[in-house]
Amino acid sequence: MNRHVVVREIDRADPEVVDALGQIGTATVHEAIGRVGYVGVELRPIQQDVKIGGSAVTVLSHPGDNLMIHAAVEVCRPGDVLVVVNTAPSTHGMFGDLLATSLMQRGVRGLIIDAGVRDTSDLRAMGFPVWSRYVSCQGTVKNTPGSVNVPVVLGGLVVNPGDVVCADDDGVVIVPRSDAAWALEQSNSRIAKEAATREKLAAGELGVDFYGLRAKLAELGVEYVDRL
Amino acid sequence: MNRHVVVREIDRADPEVVDALGQIGTATVHEAIGRVGYVGVELRPIQQDVKIGGSAVTVLSHPGDNLMIHAAVEVCRPGDVLVVVNTAPSTHGMFGDLLATSLMQRGVRGLIIDAGVRDTSDLRAMGFPVWSRYVSCQGTVKNTPGSVNVPVVLGGLVVNPGDVVCADDDGVVIVPRSDAAWALEQSNSRIAKEAATREKLAAGELGVDFYGLRAKLAELGVEYVDRL
Amino acid sequence: MNRHVVVREIDRADPEVVDALGQIGTATVHEAIGRVGYVGVELRPIQQDVKIGGSAVTVLSHPGDNLMIHAAVEVCRPGDVLVVVNTAPSTHGMFGDLLATSLMQRGVRGLIIDAGVRDTSDLRAMGFPVWSRYVSCQGTVKNTPGSVNVPVVLGGLVVNPGDVVCADDDGVVIVPRSDAAWALEQSNSRIAKEAATREKLAAGELGVDFYGLRAKLAELGVEYVDRL
Amino acid sequence: MNRHVVVREIDRADPEVVDALGQIGTATVHEAIGRVGYVGVELRPIQQDVKIGGSAVTVLSHPGDNLMIHAAVEVCRPGDVLVVVNTAPSTHGMFGDLLATSLMQRGVRGLIIDAGVRDTSDLRAMGFPVWSRYVSCQGTVKNTPGSVNVPVVLGGLVVNPGDVVCADDDGVVIVPRSDAAWALEQSNSRIAKEAATREKLAAGELGVDFYGLRAKLAELGVEYVDRL
Amino acid sequence: MNRHVVVREIDRADPEVVDALGQIGTATVHEAIGRVGYVGVELRPIQQDVKIGGSAVTVLSHPGDNLMIHAAVEVCRPGDVLVVVNTAPSTHGMFGDLLATSLMQRGVRGLIIDAGVRDTSDLRAMGFPVWSRYVSCQGTVKNTPGSVNVPVVLGGLVVNPGDVVCADDDGVVIVPRSDAAWALEQSNSRIAKEAATREKLAAGELGVDFYGLRAKLAELGVEYVDRL
Amino acid sequence: MNRHVVVREIDRADPEVVDALGQIGTATVHEAIGRVGYVGVELRPIQQDVKIGGSAVTVLSHPGDNLMIHAAVEVCRPGDVLVVVNTAPSTHGMFGDLLATSLMQRGVRGLIIDAGVRDTSDLRAMGFPVWSRYVSCQGTVKNTPGSVNVPVVLGGLVVNPGDVVCADDDGVVIVPRSDAAWALEQSNSRIAKEAATREKLAAGELGVDFYGLRAKLAELGVEYVDRL
Repeated sequence: MNRHVVVREIDRADPEVVDALGQIGTATVHEAIGRVGYVGVELRPIQQDVKIGGSAVTVLSHPGDNLMIHAAVEVCRPGDVLVVVNTAPSTHGMFGDLLATSLMQRGVRGLIIDAGVRDTSDLRAMGFPVWSRYVSCQGTVKNTPGSVNVPVVLGGLVVNPGDVVCADDDGVVIVPRSDAAWALEQSNSRIAKEAATREKLAAGELGVDFYGLRAKLAELGVEYVDRL
Repeated sequence: MNRHVVVREIDRADPEVVDALGQIGTATVHEAIGRVGYVGVELRPIQQDVKIGGSAVTVLSHPGDNLMIHAAVEVCRPGDVLVVVNTAPSTHGMFGDLLATSLMQRGVRGLIIDAGVRDTSDLRAMGFPVWSRYVSCQGTVKNTPGSVNVPVVLGGLVVNPGDVVCADDDGVVIVPRSDAAWALEQSNSRIAKEAATREKLAAGELGVDFYGLRAKLAELGVEYVDRL
Repeated sequence: MNRHVVVREIDRADPEVVDALGQIGTATVHEAIGRVGYVGVELRPIQQDVKIGGSAVTVLSHPGDNLMIHAAVEVCRPGDVLVVVNTAPSTHGMFGDLLATSLMQRGVRGLIIDAGVRDTSDLRAMGFPVWSRYVSCQGTVKNTPGSVNVPVVLGGLVVNPGDVVCADDDGVVIVPRSDAAWALEQSNSRIAKEAATREKLAAGELGVDFYGLRAKLAELGVEYVDRL
Repeated sequence: MNRHVVVREIDRADPEVVDALGQIGTATVHEAIGRVGYVGVELRPIQQDVKIGGSAVTVLSHPGDNLMIHAAVEVCRPGDVLVVVNTAPSTHGMFGDLLATSLMQRGVRGLIIDAGVRDTSDLRAMGFPVWSRYVSCQGTVKNTPGSVNVPVVLGGLVVNPGDVVCADDDGVVIVPRSDAAWALEQSNSRIAKEAATREKLAAGELGVDFYGLRAKLAELGVEYVDRL
Repeated sequence: MNRHVVVREIDRADPEVVDALGQIGTATVHEAIGRVGYVGVELRPIQQDVKIGGSAVTVLSHPGDNLMIHAAVEVCRPGDVLVVVNTAPSTHGMFGDLLATSLMQRGVRGLIIDAGVRDTSDLRAMGFPVWSRYVSCQGTVKNTPGSVNVPVVLGGLVVNPGDVVCADDDGVVIVPRSDAAWALEQSNSRIAKEAATREKLAAGELGVDFYGLRAKLAELGVEYVDRL
Repeated sequence: MNRHVVVREIDRADPEVVDALGQIGTATVHEAIGRVGYVGVELRPIQQDVKIGGSAVTVLSHPGDNLMIHAAVEVCRPGDVLVVVNTAPSTHGMFGDLLATSLMQRGVRGLIIDAGVRDTSDLRAMGFPVWSRYVSCQGTVKNTPGSVNVPVVLGGLVVNPGDVVCADDDGVVIVPRSDAAWALEQSNSRIAKEAATREKLAAGELGVDFYGLRAKLAELGVEYVDRL
């Protein structure tokens, strides 16, 4: 049955782990945890050079209706990231500077929304980061129920309340809450390994040697020729 | 019958009202006039943090043909905004820095084009703002007739010559010429109201209380639960 | 037959011509060579206000597999631009800061990729310019063969290895290698002509007079009317 | 101001003219009236080989909400076609076999909807034709007001209540009510002319001769060569 | 961690319930279970007037690689429906008549694939129904691992192995396995109710009266006017 | 330089080979020649269950202008297929029943057009098959030059005049003229091989065994588990 609920309490990952994951960069986290967790190319930042990590508070709304975003503010805590999806595609600007004012007052770190956002110039000036599918000044109504803190599907991925949201210029990656510590560990290993690799590549070593790809290319039948 | 005309004279709204509307922000104007007037998410600015208001001079062109844009320059006056649409979708860069030079010389404040634009780096340097569907360096021909200053459909909205065009980072909003003064009044009321709201929200008051949404949520059957 | 090859040696245009073409701007080059060479609106820069020119080293990959990009690094020379296409559409972030480190070490000037790119914040900081269809942190595998330095189709245009790639904020234009010197000459003529035109337009002369369009408009049946 | 109204009475074109226009075919009508009136490629039929003509009863709805379609049934008369648009894009299946039952009972000839439709198999079986942007089984709510029989924008065109809607396999064409008789006359002339042309072309005469295009090609600089 | 597994055994719903749900129609099932379960407008049938129900066997593949579809055949049982998604968007024709031959031999009822399908004419002739995002003759490789019978996200919805897949001309609806019996009950109630409604509407009763919408319209401020 | 030419004479492949390739099916031809030649998912048939093969006569047009299609008719011969592309995207219905009448009179077998087509109901009735990107009743002008029988890019593939065009329900495949005989041979081998495979699969043999994929799956680390 399709109950509409606002869930007040959710479990969150260790705040230090969440903070650390947020600073690593989505590409690294995504690779480190087995090349999963990316929500897809449609969700783009409205700002540049901002990285965040936080705990997901999820909202499921009717298209063109932001009633449930208002309901969600109350259950947010410092360090959270609001994740808003709709029951069907929506281009509306469902979120603007007033909601951002409320969320910043509660310590929320940003918004991920599979719809539009407005007041984007103000949001950048306020320092409230947003990843959205659209920018749109079109306003919404407050007529149709939805839910807060239920599992949602965001761009091809399930987001459970309390999952870790990492977002930067490359997009949004979701780490399941229970994998957060492991994901941080894996990411840190990868960072160390990449630093060593970067040094070698910068010195002119070839990736095709370094990664041992010559044998692979030969095995796959790729031929080297001097001229076509 | 499908006549092709260039209309030399159009009625414009009071210049002070137009200027004031342009500085308010599209989201506010759109809300203030009853949540209408937005042309849709496809028309995006090529620059950031620029707001304009102006009187629409409209152009209806054949795809890939900018003959009628050249014809339109002559009828533009200081304070106008050029609004260009095509009889069918076009990705061409129908407008560039030479046309912008002409328009700036005549005091035109910007371009809204449901097609592509080129020389975007130069246009930003010149301070000529553009909202377009595409950026494209592809040039056009000058072979097929169209019209200037006829009513056009822009992204789901009718634009009549002389209507007020408001554009900023959130997109483009059209205010019918005859509603301009009323729209400004409504927008100013809304700004005052929003300032008061912003203050309360910044102080921690919840929108769900402030807007009286708890009763609505209850009426719609939304349940509050502590845990899922 | 579908052989997979890495071609080591390609012919390139005169480096001085390539450098000069790169600084002209894609809109001008495209117009100057007869309004051809533009690859389409889908390939967008991840940075602003950067112009490059270079010789194309081409890569044909399987979607979601960057094996052949690694193979291509070795055949790149200073002044080259890497051009990557897939055998079918791909949203993957097939390229990031490590590959950019390798390419910069070899003097490569930028990347054109008909897929996604990641580490975009780092790439901007490193000064390695990219034009891509998507930004995506999603990583790739290295399992499926492809080719390097074969002719490829990029967004509606054939790119042969060694062709001149021009890219700026307006997009990407390809000049066939054998036309490079002629294209530069044509572009320079056009620049001179446009400078003269710009001066006249800035002084208030109308393009409709300057380009002799009044006769054309009349011939096409466009009527001037004072009021609609 | 954004009033919500249901307008009970509208003017319609002469029923015989409407019927005749519906049987002509959209391509012919569109050409005959000056190559205008086409609503665009996004609205496609759910059935094949059906042609209709009727008087537009228009509906403006909130996305995902079909309250106003229910309100519109009452004002429909025999020979009408229901035209439904939303205030923002919607993929919902806003219309199904129950609404079709009601409309057929009232003599309505079909539906044009800039959203989704469902029960498509049943609708075909019932003989109720539909042109829609999507097919979707997703249901709607009845919470948000809109209007009936106000001017609407449908895919780049204004539709006024009482305008003539022509629809067939090639799409949907709108003829302004006051142009209906003239449009029929023009269409009939065109049909006669095309029949003569068809006969000549079928006999092997070339269009390039018949339409006098050789001079045009020469004037435009098109060269004939035997081999490339 | 990103393990690749083929899960041999899954729980399925009661076969009689599955069969019955398949014959009801997706629009009815979707409404009956609370307006949920629809996978979205992108997945379209390659045939017309076919309804199926079955138990989901899920496949997660790399784009352009159908290795895991081959692996999945073995774990399919009579009454199953194969559900194939990719780790990133793919247009490839990942499935054709040979795989269909295998699946039909095992009693599989159809395919839902978030990618392309080929041999569509043959598949229709064989009576093997398919819902896909694309039709494409482009073939795939067999190089990259994936999984069979893990939870997958299909067009905005989670599909667990053993969930009930309902598909017809309106699209695809997923019913969680544990809700199957309840969903059937709800659907049957709805069918009965709709039959009664249909009779009334066919007799000319208005939905606006029948559903009690006049009060709603009044409450929402919708005004009835005779003329605009 | 951008000359506009109509090339009268082109080389064609052996007519018997062309005819045979046309009957094989695009998926088989595409696989047989090394998984190349497919023009992409955007070009779809307006009819069902039709297969054609023919020699490409190519047309390069300005968007919304069908002048060059008229010029192309004259150079077509029995057994040809007309291939029309534009210099930029176009949704226009650039081709209808009159042009089809001309082409059928000359023995042309069908049309591939990267734009719209109209009179689709009539075209199906006439038995003139079309693969297009859009269906649109919107008409075109005849004002801007282009070329006939020059190499063109069609949906990611180069088509040279005289190349073999194969088209069916799965889309369009291009075989280079000089590869036609070899392609037929390869296709026939593949057909024989697939017939044998089909028999085995129909008898219940598993593809995973038949194609030797178990070793591959093991090597790639895919684990078989009984339950998740």
